[in-house]
Amino acid sequence: MAKQLSGAGLRGQVAGKTALSTVGVSGSGLTYRGYDVKELADKCQFEEVAYLILKGELPTQAQLDDYKAKLKSLRTLPQPLKEVLERIPASAHPMDVMRTGCSMLGNLETEDSFEQQQEATDRMLALFPGMINYWYNFSHKDKRIDVDTDADSIAEQFLWTLHGEKPSELHTQVMHASLILYAEHEFNASTFTARVCASTLSDMHSCVTGAIGSLRGPLHGGANEAAMELIEGMENPDDAEQKLLGMLERKEKIMGFGHAVYSESDPRNAIIKLWSEKLAQENGNTSLYDISERCEAVMWREKKLFCNADFFHASAYNYMGIPTKLFTPIFVCSRLTGWAGHVMEQRADNRIIRPSAEYTGEELRPVTAIADR
Amino acid sequence: MAKQLSGAGLRGQVAGKTALSTVGVSGSGLTYRGYDVKELADKCQFEEVAYLILKGELPTQAQLDDYKAKLKSLRTLPQPLKEVLERIPASAHPMDVMRTGCSMLGNLETEDSFEQQQEATDRMLALFPGMINYWYNFSHKDKRIDVDTDADSIAEQFLWTLHGEKPSELHTQVMHASLILYAEHEFNASTFTARVCASTLSDMHSCVTGAIGSLRGPLHGGANEAAMELIEGMENPDDAEQKLLGMLERKEKIMGFGHAVYSESDPRNAIIKLWSEKLAQENGNTSLYDISERCEAVMWREKKLFCNADFFHASAYNYMGIPTKLFTPIFVCSRLTGWAGHVMEQRADNRIIRPSAEYTGEELRPVTAIADR
Repeated sequence: MAKQLSGAGLRGQVAGKTALSTVGVSGSGLTYRGYDVKELADKCQFEEVAYLILKGELPTQAQLDDYKAKLKSLRTLPQPLKEVLERIPASAHPMDVMRTGCSMLGNLETEDSFEQQQEATDRMLALFPGMINYWYNFSHKDKRIDVDTDADSIAEQFLWTLHGEKPSELHTQVMHASLILYAEHEFNASTFTARVCASTLSDMHSCVTGAIGSLRGPLHGGANEAAMELIEGMENPDDAEQKLLGMLERKEKIMGFGHAVYSESDPRNAIIKLWSEKLAQENGNTSLYDISERCEAVMWREKKLFCNADFFHASAYNYMGIPTKLFTPIFVCSRLTGWAGHVMEQRADNRIIRPSAEYTGEELRPVTAIADR
Repeated sequence: MAKQLSGAGLRGQVAGKTALSTVGVSGSGLTYRGYDVKELADKCQFEEVAYLILKGELPTQAQLDDYKAKLKSLRTLPQPLKEVLERIPASAHPMDVMRTGCSMLGNLETEDSFEQQQEATDRMLALFPGMINYWYNFSHKDKRIDVDTDADSIAEQFLWTLHGEKPSELHTQVMHASLILYAEHEFNASTFTARVCASTLSDMHSCVTGAIGSLRGPLHGGANEAAMELIEGMENPDDAEQKLLGMLERKEKIMGFGHAVYSESDPRNAIIKLWSEKLAQENGNTSLYDISERCEAVMWREKKLFCNADFFHASAYNYMGIPTKLFTPIFVCSRLTGWAGHVMEQRADNRIIRPSAEYTGEELRPVTAIADR
């Protein structure tokens, strides 16, 4: 009765409509609402892209100024949320902290009607960077930080609340680009989670909480952390080559290369790679960048596998002093725009997402009385 | 390139395999691992069904005794979880409390390896009833309850922690049946959410947290609450008939009737209806049951719409003194078994669930400098 799909994991199956992005369409790698992500990352601030994704068009200067001022006004952490964050141990997975913080916020500032969807999203966009860094500083450094900084942007706010001081112009620029690159990617698993949740007409915080849980999975969001673990174990480019060849021979999984949808290259790689190089030069110690470049060359030469968006993010984030465990939470701060945009789309033209299953279990059988089992 | 599906919401499309249940297969309404749900609800305790769903077969008496003893030992709420629950206001949506409590538990007792999946599930099964009632009693009655009761079962534990005393035999029996009826239902939206999350190889708490968020949606889990709101506004059967006819004439949505998958009847209705009737007789005031019965008759006569599992749950829960806002959290305490069973299945034969989208947006366009927009 139900139609059998050709591939597992719904691969290649259309599960809905979107006007938000195209992924892997020939000639234009990745586009957000028709704009090439490379051009956006080159010319825009993250807030312009968030505005584009959520409201449909790039803002004028006046609209951007208003939007940034608004986001700036929404950073304060509610006291009960702080108290929850303080009860999460340092040993916790930072994505569990994000998931719990988002869920707690939903208790305190519930989205009672879909008319509040933009407001709820803006609040999370503004608050998430300070939220994760509040927990990080409290649990790891015993510091209660003030998240109400003078930071001009979400990019600056993340670095400022992490390090406790205004970041350099270069670092802020890199964060803008990084947040833009991760903002949206069609029906990936976390976004699809958000849409399935939205299809029950649940609230925005439930959708985002669910999406965070999916992004947490090692097959999805953790690739830049895994890439960092890989390269920090390498001493220099020659050592990197040797170690990679050994891993390839042992058929070990190497994170940060290849992609489920892209077949020839990941359009986001060139951009973050360039930023990683600039950060290496600024730093003076280019070792991590040199190692990363060698990895890229070896993987291409040996396996025709290209770096995806995650690989050079590892060195870039590391050069900015970001602890590896916070890499995926940054992904959340960015992808939140895509998730929320998809929730809004799903709500605007909804049918509950309720597929069928192929039954592989027992035939009908009678219940034996427990004494006779 | 991507295949267009026939229906929106993936309706009728096979999105994976399951051995857990069949829904709407002719002749056997709803089966869990081959057993008719009516027979299970008639002959089993909820723990037997949880064991069946999670481990594949009904337990022997010794296995059941062990499993119940184990669950009983896992009820205690961790202190930081209590402190989080105490920070959630009385005004919060109880499903947001469940979602946050589950997420917080994941920080404190993280599932670090899939070998812990049964343990993590058992812990949630044992702890959730006390968790929601701890919050409810604290926020609504200013009471810190002790969840370490002598209750023999999850059914008894829910009523005991809610009311602060051992429930009657009849009420415990009804709760067993109710928890069995709601335990599993193939690829419904919350279960599918859990499977999408599981497909990234994320942890059990993320999967369940996401599923709770989806079950929260008014198109999914809230139908018994809506049914309660409907019938408590009716004074007697004749008033019920008049009000329903008015609603039908105004084409208002009436919750608790019909089903996305079942076309002729919901196999769960007869069982909970019978229990509702017994509770009415015990209570002496049969008004709510009589009103419900009239609603059933009117909806069938006028629209050929049958009661689904939710409709008589409203009166049954009400007769047991359960506040309407806690109806859907009970659903969570039950459906957790199905969610976890599906997560385990997904993990055992996984491919990341990543469908495609039909693009309906802008063609490729250049980024205009912000000054020129």
